[in-house]
Amino acid sequence: MSSTVGEVIKCKAAIAWEAGKPLVIEEVEVAPPQAGEVRLKILFTSLCHTDVYFWEAKGQTPLFPRIFGHEAGGIVESVGEGVTHLKPGDHALPVFTGECGECPHCKSEESNMCDLLRINTDRGVMLNDGKSRFTVKGQPVHHFVGTSTFSEYTVVHAGCVAKINPEAPLDKVCVLSCGICTGLGATINVAKPKPGSSVAIFGLGAVGLAAAEGARISGAKRIIGVDLVSSRFEEAKKFGVNEFVNPKEHSKPVQEVIAEMTNGGVDRAIECTGSIQAMISAFECVHDGWGVAVLVGVPSKDVEFKTHPVNFLNERTLKGTFYGNYKPRTHLPGVVEKYMRGELEIEKFITHTVPFSEINKAFDLMLKGESIRCIIRMEE
Amino acid sequence: MSSTVGEVIKCKAAIAWEAGKPLVIEEVEVAPPQAGEVRLKILFTSLCHTDVYFWEAKGQTPLFPRIFGHEAGGIVESVGEGVTHLKPGDHALPVFTGECGECPHCKSEESNMCDLLRINTDRGVMLNDGKSRFTVKGQPVHHFVGTSTFSEYTVVHAGCVAKINPEAPLDKVCVLSCGICTGLGATINVAKPKPGSSVAIFGLGAVGLAAAEGARISGAKRIIGVDLVSSRFEEAKKFGVNEFVNPKEHSKPVQEVIAEMTNGGVDRAIECTGSIQAMISAFECVHDGWGVAVLVGVPSKDVEFKTHPVNFLNERTLKGTFYGNYKPRTHLPGVVEKYMRGELEIEKFITHTVPFSEINKAFDLMLKGESIRCIIRMEE
Repeated sequence: MSSTVGEVIKCKAAIAWEAGKPLVIEEVEVAPPQAGEVRLKILFTSLCHTDVYFWEAKGQTPLFPRIFGHEAGGIVESVGEGVTHLKPGDHALPVFTGECGECPHCKSEESNMCDLLRINTDRGVMLNDGKSRFTVKGQPVHHFVGTSTFSEYTVVHAGCVAKINPEAPLDKVCVLSCGICTGLGATINVAKPKPGSSVAIFGLGAVGLAAAEGARISGAKRIIGVDLVSSRFEEAKKFGVNEFVNPKEHSKPVQEVIAEMTNGGVDRAIECTGSIQAMISAFECVHDGWGVAVLVGVPSKDVEFKTHPVNFLNERTLKGTFYGNYKPRTHLPGVVEKYMRGELEIEKFITHTVPFSEINKAFDLMLKGESIRCIIRMEE
Repeated sequence: MSSTVGEVIKCKAAIAWEAGKPLVIEEVEVAPPQAGEVRLKILFTSLCHTDVYFWEAKGQTPLFPRIFGHEAGGIVESVGEGVTHLKPGDHALPVFTGECGECPHCKSEESNMCDLLRINTDRGVMLNDGKSRFTVKGQPVHHFVGTSTFSEYTVVHAGCVAKINPEAPLDKVCVLSCGICTGLGATINVAKPKPGSSVAIFGLGAVGLAAAEGARISGAKRIIGVDLVSSRFEEAKKFGVNEFVNPKEHSKPVQEVIAEMTNGGVDRAIECTGSIQAMISAFECVHDGWGVAVLVGVPSKDVEFKTHPVNFLNERTLKGTFYGNYKPRTHLPGVVEKYMRGELEIEKFITHTVPFSEINKAFDLMLKGESIRCIIRMEE
């Protein structure tokens, strides 16, 4: 690989030319990494709802052409000036949010919301020079959340790249770049259920299932799935969900249903849908005295969280989390090790695999709700 | 004192015959304690806003005649059947909320909201038999929050009585029965500011000053008082408050003023007013990534806490507390020791002292906003 260092690499990438239109595999030129950047050879990437959301561009600022993709595993091809924690050949996971190591958030033990490298969905360029590293047919292509992993090679800020155990299978651990860690960390790092406790999970998509997996790993006894689609319960059982409530099947608010099931409320609740009503229900279904609810799902811009303040005064806690409170560089290697030790079961999240040439199938599967995670193999 | 065991005691008590009318010192008969109860000789009591609030009876169910009072220090005169943790002669603080030791809340390390003995402002009788232990002129007198300390003798559920160090001066530590512990514990037990951190205190009444005292003890560097009355800042300086904001003096919301003062927000905020707007401001003025806001003040029944859920997702935490999360029997003796070691400075909360015969002066002082705590000496 050393022959490409400092050179423009020509390779294949899946270009989103227009909102909602199938991606087109094109030959792109990928510029070398600048100071503080890393160029990665992507081996496996997977599709997350966030890619689909911005590809559909309903409401957000549309930036096209664009290379989506932010869950991936790869190998460092070359590094820019000043990059010391990575070297060519390292196995790595790019992440949509970063860790500069210098700002108050990076220096805080509690936060992972790096001032410099915090997710920015409106920015389609690199921080260093405000330009793209991708060119297709002579025109620049927008980056997506600083990762753009639907390309055989990509350039990422070094603060957004976690170096991991080279023995970890990249076709599995690539899913840790986003949704799985988001749900897992919401439970393990933020809700922190005790062994034997009860946990309600609102929304049994990939993030909610990862939150359930976190509850299972934590030794929770009752893991109550809450979803508007009852058929999801069957799949969710693999992730530790052992009770199920469909709010549509009850005439009273779901928080009251759960309080009755649990003698006053669950010990912990994790909200993974983004629905404001689910957020309120998740908070109001936790037990007074010690209950903790954690918000994970991203809400619409014009909603309001509303509750009577006595629900707080009765010693309930409400927290939110971003990427499960994991600091990408500091904590991701440890999550990979948790998988390597057999504690975290990643395989059950991976329902499909397609070659890069069939990347649009991954979109179809997600839009139909048939996949949890579909892995896209970059090498045919 | 042993001669009175098992007998009705005749003594003086301050009777509230009607809402808002001056209390009248009357001779009352105090029945002996029943099973699980304790009869206390009250030596010092103090007046708290909650007494005044229920004495005014604006909105709540009026229960008269009633003996108010819930901050006090005294000596155990006799104990009912089955009471093992207290004996005659023990120095004790009665508390408006209790600790049965058996319910899920008492068994939880996190909660102090005992199922059996949780505060009940609508109940004017003892739990054991649903009757009063007080008689005046042949008619029963309602109890208040199970304590009714405006009486030379009172009967309290043993689960609501903390045994304390007999060397502690009861004329000082009596204020720990309610407001001071509520504010102190909100900071020390719930907000848990780190040394060197910034803390905003909303409301500089007794509870807010106690919250500031907790921040001072915790080693907070910036303690920002927020109050609509600017003159309160001077007094508050004794409690560690070293910056002040009066929301009325700013055109922008106070949360924005505080965010600008603190480079993005304070580390912790404690809301001690009960105003819904202050609650929202307290939450929204904490820093993203690690900020924690704690609600202490009791709100009106028909308000709603409203905020955009992104304020949570940006890793802010909102909690509420009741009596500073102290379990009365388990934790109050330790708070008394904190005073005995000189860490907690109680004296500065005590602005006035009156003899029992002048108890109505204590009401006047509080209504005029002139006192923080006024101690009422039961023995002239």
